[in-house]
Amino acid sequence: MDKQKLQPLKGFRDLGPDEMAVRTEAVKRLRTVFERYGFVELQTPTLEKAEVLLGKYGQEAEKLMYLFEDRGGRKVGLKYDLTVPLARYMAANKNTPLPFKRYQIQPVWRAENTQKGRYREFYQCDVDTIGSSSPMADAEILAVIKDALLELGFETFTTIINSRTVLFKTLESVDIKGNNRLSVIQTIDKLDKKSKEEVSKELAEKGLSKNKVKSIFDAFQNSLPDEYLSEVIKRAEDLGVDNLSFTPTLARGLDYYTGPIFETVVEKPKIGSLTGGGRYDNLIKSLGGPDLAAVGTSIGFERAVDVIAELGLWSTTSSGPQVFLTVFSGKYRGQATEAAYTMRKTGINTELSVVDQPLDKQLKYAGRRGIPFALIIGPNEAKGKSVTLKDLKLGTQETFSLERAIQTLQNK
Amino acid sequence: MDKQKLQPLKGFRDLGPDEMAVRTEAVKRLRTVFERYGFVELQTPTLEKAEVLLGKYGQEAEKLMYLFEDRGGRKVGLKYDLTVPLARYMAANKNTPLPFKRYQIQPVWRAENTQKGRYREFYQCDVDTIGSSSPMADAEILAVIKDALLELGFETFTTIINSRTVLFKTLESVDIKGNNRLSVIQTIDKLDKKSKEEVSKELAEKGLSKNKVKSIFDAFQNSLPDEYLSEVIKRAEDLGVDNLSFTPTLARGLDYYTGPIFETVVEKPKIGSLTGGGRYDNLIKSLGGPDLAAVGTSIGFERAVDVIAELGLWSTTSSGPQVFLTVFSGKYRGQATEAAYTMRKTGINTELSVVDQPLDKQLKYAGRRGIPFALIIGPNEAKGKSVTLKDLKLGTQETFSLERAIQTLQNK
Repeated sequence: MDKQKLQPLKGFRDLGPDEMAVRTEAVKRLRTVFERYGFVELQTPTLEKAEVLLGKYGQEAEKLMYLFEDRGGRKVGLKYDLTVPLARYMAANKNTPLPFKRYQIQPVWRAENTQKGRYREFYQCDVDTIGSSSPMADAEILAVIKDALLELGFETFTTIINSRTVLFKTLESVDIKGNNRLSVIQTIDKLDKKSKEEVSKELAEKGLSKNKVKSIFDAFQNSLPDEYLSEVIKRAEDLGVDNLSFTPTLARGLDYYTGPIFETVVEKPKIGSLTGGGRYDNLIKSLGGPDLAAVGTSIGFERAVDVIAELGLWSTTSSGPQVFLTVFSGKYRGQATEAAYTMRKTGINTELSVVDQPLDKQLKYAGRRGIPFALIIGPNEAKGKSVTLKDLKLGTQETFSLERAIQTLQNK
Repeated sequence: MDKQKLQPLKGFRDLGPDEMAVRTEAVKRLRTVFERYGFVELQTPTLEKAEVLLGKYGQEAEKLMYLFEDRGGRKVGLKYDLTVPLARYMAANKNTPLPFKRYQIQPVWRAENTQKGRYREFYQCDVDTIGSSSPMADAEILAVIKDALLELGFETFTTIINSRTVLFKTLESVDIKGNNRLSVIQTIDKLDKKSKEEVSKELAEKGLSKNKVKSIFDAFQNSLPDEYLSEVIKRAEDLGVDNLSFTPTLARGLDYYTGPIFETVVEKPKIGSLTGGGRYDNLIKSLGGPDLAAVGTSIGFERAVDVIAELGLWSTTSSGPQVFLTVFSGKYRGQATEAAYTMRKTGINTELSVVDQPLDKQLKYAGRRGIPFALIIGPNEAKGKSVTLKDLKLGTQETFSLERAIQTLQNK
């Protein structure tokens, strides 16, 4: 095969050992947090019937879908997100005890233009409570977000929160209604990235008078949480959520939200928005599911693992072996094997040399693999019933008993 | 949507919380074992270029592939197994340090006729050492199989082992050659399921004389491991593998094996073959990869998780919460929330009621969810600064301090 042919399809990736070490650990940490709150896991198929996918997201989205006919002539497609399959699941499983608190961490597919950090096959991570219209459910999502980001190693972040009902009421108070409403919201939403002047200018270009623009800004300045949102914030505080910031100009792009909306902005490291969500009481029904209230969030999984790897947020991200057990020569193979057996029994991830080559080549291989230690049992060690433990990063080594070597590795 | 439409595509499954609890735990246990031996994880894309998939498996397989044209007119397909993508990965990543010891646990897709326990989307679990022609590499695969099956909860099993070279030599000794060889092997392979008489009859039907059949049986009876296979068995024993059984009639269907071949037969619970593998030194090259020796095994992931769930091999397979925190009424919500917060901090998976409903309905919901305990803080408990912990299976309950309740749950 030629070289080009051997690469994955554009926008698709081979995830090698280094990437997988971070991803697997991140999934593990997220699962721990979600399950701590009583959320349970769901996975839905890679392929869905095309009729389940189509007409749910709008035409722009449909252009990005992987749709085809299978061998039986059925129109099918790769799933585009995790929300439509959830709605279908709720519709197909009417006896599910409610509330249904589910999390889902799976790949989805979109034929997007590729660019750095944007893939055609990428993981989404959603956590949602279906079937509760209580502010307690919203509050728990906020608590899950906080714990999840802490667990992933992010230090300082703020969850900015608003509510669609508050937003609409604020606009109503200055007589912005109907289609104007969405247009104004889209501009106001840019206040986190643009200056007040720039936003004012954009509003003026949309035909609003200078006075109108002023009254809009005044209205947002005086905007306050309504009863529901206040209750959400209060209950979230009871759950230990101390990083909320009421942000009356927060709008969120998607128009299906019906109540509280929130985003988490990570300040340290400074990477911007990492989660987004809110209450969407009509969506499950409009997607073909039953009429159920819902609230939840997405956590930007791909962005999170990219940042964790790039900035080295974790002290170690390797799932590779801790020690490489060299085989000095055929004569000492039995002792090396026995030592490998013992070390594995004590829980140390141990790679035993399985290629017949000189010691220096074995050590070079272990170094290239990034394995931190090598164990050597040669003639001297065999005579003294000892082993030599070599630190492959520092180049130092010590000769002592196997038990001592195991203790040393366990304490690392 | 009508009811039929809401179901997943034929051969595809929604994996609900109960299924996911078993699958996620099984993957976790397998990862632990593989990494103990220094294997690292690889994931390859769902879609591959059609030219990567086609011409590698034979025409029968191609009929089962999900192939289509994407929006850019590229011919693509869902991956059919984990071996061809591994070969492509090795070819695309020529600088990978060798040996490359990788495991891969991912779904593959085949448009098979569906039947119980057979799906069109199913997980495969492969563990392979690429780039070592040492018997040590084969031996380690045998050790991994043993540890993996033990870790999954299987108690008694035997790994039957043979070698393609031994098999061919045995047949050669009775003058069975060329095409005859494969035909005879296919019949001999049935000795694990059919009687000697039935197999004799089938050989006779294939045109072999009575004397010839007798000499074949005699030859297999006297068959012995060759030097390489003996070395594999010896080294596996050094690694603690005590469940090997040399089985000269073992042939394995796939014709790409070049050396040792093995299958693991689980006797308790009696479920038959759960793993299969061997050495395949020419395959990676023939699939378009570099010329690398290889040995590995597949572990029947779907079969394993089905059996674990059906026979209840694990004492618990729930990832659901350990305790349901009821909210007696609005007045006691604060105390319930605080208790939930404290319990989660101590690592207890806790679901807090997020639907405003009477206590009996809350308890009923917890029961339906299979949550083992409920915690109640009502007027009496609040007065006595205590909590009531109710065992939802036994129906018993005790009133004591929150600390005591936490201790009780931690000891379960």
